[in-house]
Amino acid sequence: MARKRRSAIPQARAGQVADRLERFTVEIPSWGFADTGTRFGKFTQDAAAVDLEDKFADAGAVHRYTGITPSVAVHVLWDFPGGFDPATVNLAEAHGVRIGSINPNLFQDQCYKHGSVTNRRPSIRRRAVRHILDSIDIARAAGSKYLSLWFADGANYPGQADIRRRKAWATAALKKAHRALPRGAVMLIEYKPFEPASYFTDFFDWGSSYIFAKAAGPRAKVLVDTGHHLPGCNIEQIVAWLLDEKMLGGFHFNDRKYADDDLTVGAIAPYQMFRIFNEIAAWEAQRRRDLDIAYMIDQSHNVKPKVQAMIQTVCTVQELFAKALCVDRAALAEAQSREDTVAAEEALRAAFHADVGPILRSVRKALGVPSDPLAAFRASGYEQRAARERTQKRQDLGMTETSSYA
Amino acid sequence: MARKRRSAIPQARAGQVADRLERFTVEIPSWGFADTGTRFGKFTQDAAAVDLEDKFADAGAVHRYTGITPSVAVHVLWDFPGGFDPATVNLAEAHGVRIGSINPNLFQDQCYKHGSVTNRRPSIRRRAVRHILDSIDIARAAGSKYLSLWFADGANYPGQADIRRRKAWATAALKKAHRALPRGAVMLIEYKPFEPASYFTDFFDWGSSYIFAKAAGPRAKVLVDTGHHLPGCNIEQIVAWLLDEKMLGGFHFNDRKYADDDLTVGAIAPYQMFRIFNEIAAWEAQRRRDLDIAYMIDQSHNVKPKVQAMIQTVCTVQELFAKALCVDRAALAEAQSREDTVAAEEALRAAFHADVGPILRSVRKALGVPSDPLAAFRASGYEQRAARERTQKRQDLGMTETSSYA
Amino acid sequence: MARKRRSAIPQARAGQVADRLERFTVEIPSWGFADTGTRFGKFTQDAAAVDLEDKFADAGAVHRYTGITPSVAVHVLWDFPGGFDPATVNLAEAHGVRIGSINPNLFQDQCYKHGSVTNRRPSIRRRAVRHILDSIDIARAAGSKYLSLWFADGANYPGQADIRRRKAWATAALKKAHRALPRGAVMLIEYKPFEPASYFTDFFDWGSSYIFAKAAGPRAKVLVDTGHHLPGCNIEQIVAWLLDEKMLGGFHFNDRKYADDDLTVGAIAPYQMFRIFNEIAAWEAQRRRDLDIAYMIDQSHNVKPKVQAMIQTVCTVQELFAKALCVDRAALAEAQSREDTVAAEEALRAAFHADVGPILRSVRKALGVPSDPLAAFRASGYEQRAARERTQKRQDLGMTETSSYA
Amino acid sequence: MARKRRSAIPQARAGQVADRLERFTVEIPSWGFADTGTRFGKFTQDAAAVDLEDKFADAGAVHRYTGITPSVAVHVLWDFPGGFDPATVNLAEAHGVRIGSINPNLFQDQCYKHGSVTNRRPSIRRRAVRHILDSIDIARAAGSKYLSLWFADGANYPGQADIRRRKAWATAALKKAHRALPRGAVMLIEYKPFEPASYFTDFFDWGSSYIFAKAAGPRAKVLVDTGHHLPGCNIEQIVAWLLDEKMLGGFHFNDRKYADDDLTVGAIAPYQMFRIFNEIAAWEAQRRRDLDIAYMIDQSHNVKPKVQAMIQTVCTVQELFAKALCVDRAALAEAQSREDTVAAEEALRAAFHADVGPILRSVRKALGVPSDPLAAFRASGYEQRAARERTQKRQDLGMTETSSYA
Repeated sequence: MARKRRSAIPQARAGQVADRLERFTVEIPSWGFADTGTRFGKFTQDAAAVDLEDKFADAGAVHRYTGITPSVAVHVLWDFPGGFDPATVNLAEAHGVRIGSINPNLFQDQCYKHGSVTNRRPSIRRRAVRHILDSIDIARAAGSKYLSLWFADGANYPGQADIRRRKAWATAALKKAHRALPRGAVMLIEYKPFEPASYFTDFFDWGSSYIFAKAAGPRAKVLVDTGHHLPGCNIEQIVAWLLDEKMLGGFHFNDRKYADDDLTVGAIAPYQMFRIFNEIAAWEAQRRRDLDIAYMIDQSHNVKPKVQAMIQTVCTVQELFAKALCVDRAALAEAQSREDTVAAEEALRAAFHADVGPILRSVRKALGVPSDPLAAFRASGYEQRAARERTQKRQDLGMTETSSYA
Repeated sequence: MARKRRSAIPQARAGQVADRLERFTVEIPSWGFADTGTRFGKFTQDAAAVDLEDKFADAGAVHRYTGITPSVAVHVLWDFPGGFDPATVNLAEAHGVRIGSINPNLFQDQCYKHGSVTNRRPSIRRRAVRHILDSIDIARAAGSKYLSLWFADGANYPGQADIRRRKAWATAALKKAHRALPRGAVMLIEYKPFEPASYFTDFFDWGSSYIFAKAAGPRAKVLVDTGHHLPGCNIEQIVAWLLDEKMLGGFHFNDRKYADDDLTVGAIAPYQMFRIFNEIAAWEAQRRRDLDIAYMIDQSHNVKPKVQAMIQTVCTVQELFAKALCVDRAALAEAQSREDTVAAEEALRAAFHADVGPILRSVRKALGVPSDPLAAFRASGYEQRAARERTQKRQDLGMTETSSYA
Repeated sequence: MARKRRSAIPQARAGQVADRLERFTVEIPSWGFADTGTRFGKFTQDAAAVDLEDKFADAGAVHRYTGITPSVAVHVLWDFPGGFDPATVNLAEAHGVRIGSINPNLFQDQCYKHGSVTNRRPSIRRRAVRHILDSIDIARAAGSKYLSLWFADGANYPGQADIRRRKAWATAALKKAHRALPRGAVMLIEYKPFEPASYFTDFFDWGSSYIFAKAAGPRAKVLVDTGHHLPGCNIEQIVAWLLDEKMLGGFHFNDRKYADDDLTVGAIAPYQMFRIFNEIAAWEAQRRRDLDIAYMIDQSHNVKPKVQAMIQTVCTVQELFAKALCVDRAALAEAQSREDTVAAEEALRAAFHADVGPILRSVRKALGVPSDPLAAFRASGYEQRAARERTQKRQDLGMTETSSYA
Repeated sequence: MARKRRSAIPQARAGQVADRLERFTVEIPSWGFADTGTRFGKFTQDAAAVDLEDKFADAGAVHRYTGITPSVAVHVLWDFPGGFDPATVNLAEAHGVRIGSINPNLFQDQCYKHGSVTNRRPSIRRRAVRHILDSIDIARAAGSKYLSLWFADGANYPGQADIRRRKAWATAALKKAHRALPRGAVMLIEYKPFEPASYFTDFFDWGSSYIFAKAAGPRAKVLVDTGHHLPGCNIEQIVAWLLDEKMLGGFHFNDRKYADDDLTVGAIAPYQMFRIFNEIAAWEAQRRRDLDIAYMIDQSHNVKPKVQAMIQTVCTVQELFAKALCVDRAALAEAQSREDTVAAEEALRAAFHADVGPILRSVRKALGVPSDPLAAFRASGYEQRAARERTQKRQDLGMTETSSYA
């Protein structure tokens, strides 16, 4: 029975797991360090990043304490409001990180009220494509591999828009963008069932992103945001299918209970995230190589302190992948071959409930980071210092942040 | 068979329906006329209300075209940012409306990050109660019958807060508020399963509001927002239960597909709204009197023009209530008594699919408003004029509205 | 404004709508006339069909009263338990109907506990494929165009089965079946998110059926059962996408509130079904030809009398398609082109709330059926006679139907 | 930081946890050992119980291996089809268990098609009440404390039934039943949002059961079946509220992904079940006494072998309660008092991910059962023996079990 192994992962497997984890990194988003909120308002934090340098500094801190977040996703309009400055690359490096995936912003400008690449007005579609092409230029300049596309496009009311025409417009835009991709770059196409649109979104599920990606070109892949699914959706099955179709491009990790809640990973459904990683681990065990996709966090917190939340979520991702790597594949396969549902399930459960603390400590030692990154960060005084300095910076800049729903 | 009556409502019933509709009014919210949006930003409208007077003007327009929206719900912080001025009552009257339900705002201030009446800090709970008492004073001054309470209080993470202690704190606050209610006033207690909180909300479903209201006092009732339910929830059953328990205080009407989408009524599920009204109509037919509750709109639109959306939603509410009043109660009861499910259902369907146009036209004639309020308003030039004047007003005031997610 | 047209469909359009409806037929299922139930038991009906002849008789009655159900879907194991007898074709004809889509049954036999075409045992996969090939033979013999495939395959527990291997096995089986299709035949691939499996189903959403169909061959298409979606899913968008991809094979119509509830169409969400038909009608208006897909009912009732329920649901399908055909396409397109969301939505709402009674009566007159099929059937005495005769038949055959959950 | 304690539960707390677990028992249901299935059919198991003695034998085996299932819930119609025989009490004892909660069956008989206690026909309501009173007599004879009421009553279609009248009929029936309760007995009132009814169920959520229980009398409490909630519902919050209201009567434990899936506990959402137990553990820590409610399993498996599944689920319940008892209450309270969301959450997560294996082994040693109940049972040969004997028994009795959907 797999159950017996719950608290004792065999030494050999523990070593393999540790090896794999030392090669595992997760990208963190610049917007995870800025003040964000809900439509009802923002609860601001003194230590929130004021500018891009603060964001890199925070990302650098996360990397310093976890050792597995070498790159930072950037959002073009939020991070380069005045255009991209090549010096930014050095700024990131100065903080110990590099620029990762490039995220165009196609939802903030007033012109996108009725869509960006799916807007019926050619001039706005051109503007949207232009912004994507500009983002590709940034990717080239920054040496980024991933162009990460999320479209807020959609409609709020039946009748408002023509679904099929919008599909055609989006396809045309994606093709143009694909043609402009630098060699080796990958275009990630995200999907989301609702929000901000509330009747339909143009990129609504994995099937839609799959078809868009197939039409766009061979380097377009599907991006799975774990918070972007309808209630009950079996996300690990989608992951398995995309793996099988060679169409999985990467992840945006977060957890949720109701909508796109942007919670830290494992806050609500840790076993589901483990099952997602189990599909990855199974694929890697079978192919005997690392899966080459983009592992990214997409979260922005308005209750938890931002750097703490990021460290917590990154460590949980690492821990749940560790557990998935601990699954006894031979025992699982053998149980499946006997149609022994109980034993097969126990092979997963044993790994999920296993204590991977020793493995994580060994990995962290190898990476040269504290064995308990969250506790070490909390004890470091970083947050207090940032709060002080950034409060001063806001005062110096005359910044006041207020927002009201109505 | 009821089906036969689909396009021919008997004259006598049509007359009764028209009579009832002439006594039917719906309250509209001041915040439905201001620029609002999603967490990803606001799409602004030139004709959006700039100040309270604009809101009253817009509400007055809705009333002028529909004849059934004599009162305006106000949100204390948004509408009286500098405190309540008794002259406001006259301002409303000057625009042909009056102040309706009073809505305290207990979620916008930074101090409410961890709750208002459920905050663990006594000073913040006191502040929240003080704001509610102030709102009650406004209600008294404005001659409002309803104090309408929605609490955004909740938690985003397991462990963050103590559910039972928060329940006790909320109960204590509600009792204090109830004691301060003027004679004849009613306290409405709303509920919502999620948003902005994403792990739990303190007022989470009708059962919770019911228990809170019972604890608060005899004039506390439950407020049903039609957009605040989990997927699949049978809202008409909740309405029937609250009616039976004499605990239904009123409605916030809107429609939804996914979350609290704030769509115009009937945009997604018109038959569901009809079934809700059917419970009201059945109760009234049985008791032979009008149900005395608060019928209110709670919507704020970021795609549709605001006054148009409000007229459209108000007219749909009226139309769906008209259809519910058309149900042949005798035929329905007779079919139910024979356990004839098909005939019973057809009695509802016949009314839902009936053409109530003639009834509505007769009601509107009696109310002295256009027979097609939406078309008449669209033809009136009001919106264009408002856009012009309010654009100027914003310039004069130096207002720039920008908001960015991160 | 579209609203004005609510109760007055222009004569010319009414004529076109009637013409189209005269060419519109819906297939009804043999299993809709037999006693069925829930896992907690069956509530039997005296008038339920005892054998295939009864089913054809009932289907013939539905066709006689509605004029639009010339064909009957058959379920191989339930309808031909002893193998297919070519005389069955004549039996159907004797009752005024013909055999329509052929539905293999791959879930009833004990050997399918762990899957049919996805079973890990080659012998069981071969048996499943053999049954599909036999069903294709029946299709050939009966002159059926459609092979309709629903697989109950799936798993109840994480770990129980290997998702990717099962995908490969299913693909192989579908390819074999596709090769055996007679000229002109179409293979429909249904999907369902859950039930009877409760962790995953192998054919889980439209994206999975799309990929399976693409792999199977050019005559494999996706079958949309309107009751097989997760909460909130926008079905009309899926329909629009499949139309655009030329991959829509047909429908199984029914309505639902919670799970796969098998309710008569329009019982819960008539406006949603209207919006689905609106996508069909828009496509047809654009292409100026009828869409060639399979319109089928898939329902089995345990409360409503079966023939009544079938007539009711068929008439509602016809009515909602009629309403969708009434949409003023020019007005809708014009409103969309102005980004006038209110007017665009009203174009849909006007058609949905329009009184299509006159159109339906004219169509029924042309088809030579009663103007109110349900009322006419209820008055006919058919049900009482069937109850009498079939009760006797059950006694003669010594049939006792009992089932207990545990 | 709580995180540090993940793999090291302090000795003192471990001792307290073990003490509490030695007093923790879970009731298992007789119907969990019989062949059951879905509406599409049953997959039978050779080792499934044929009669009540088999069920007691199986329950006895579960108790022998786990040490915490001394009682067996019985379902009156399934277990005592010929009426209750007092010798049954001894039969249970002979197998090392006793009769626990009594479950009337008010959904299997044909007369209940339109409801049992909510049926509009007085004779059927009387029959339903009579059956409940008979069940109470059985409870008295068997010395059972709990009468466990689940009503399948509801409606499939709008219009089919009068919600408020049914509420009144149900209330009257519950009052009669309450009056007949023996001294010390408790009436548990379960709820379920849907299935078998698909439009509404009469006992639809915790609020409805709460109101029914309050009306029935002081010894009526709410029964929470963990699988009976709408998507997203926060079950632990309901539990906290019912605890606070002194209205929690007990649990039916199981897990689910989509509907009422009846999966073994922890199969899908182990962290949710942990959070439910966390509310129990918090209450007990505060009151310094054991909570006196009914902990029961309600599951019936058609894929997993039945006794294995029961042992697995019982052990998981025990393990998750163990983890909840390990929460460092002082650290949690302290973190909450500082509004330190991260630390508060980590206090829960540390306990959830803690290795409670040593505690469980110590408890099992004290209870005199194997340290790994599932592995020990699987090695025991019980299942193979039961399969052999029961296959023979079925042959001897001439039993053939077949069921077909249509």
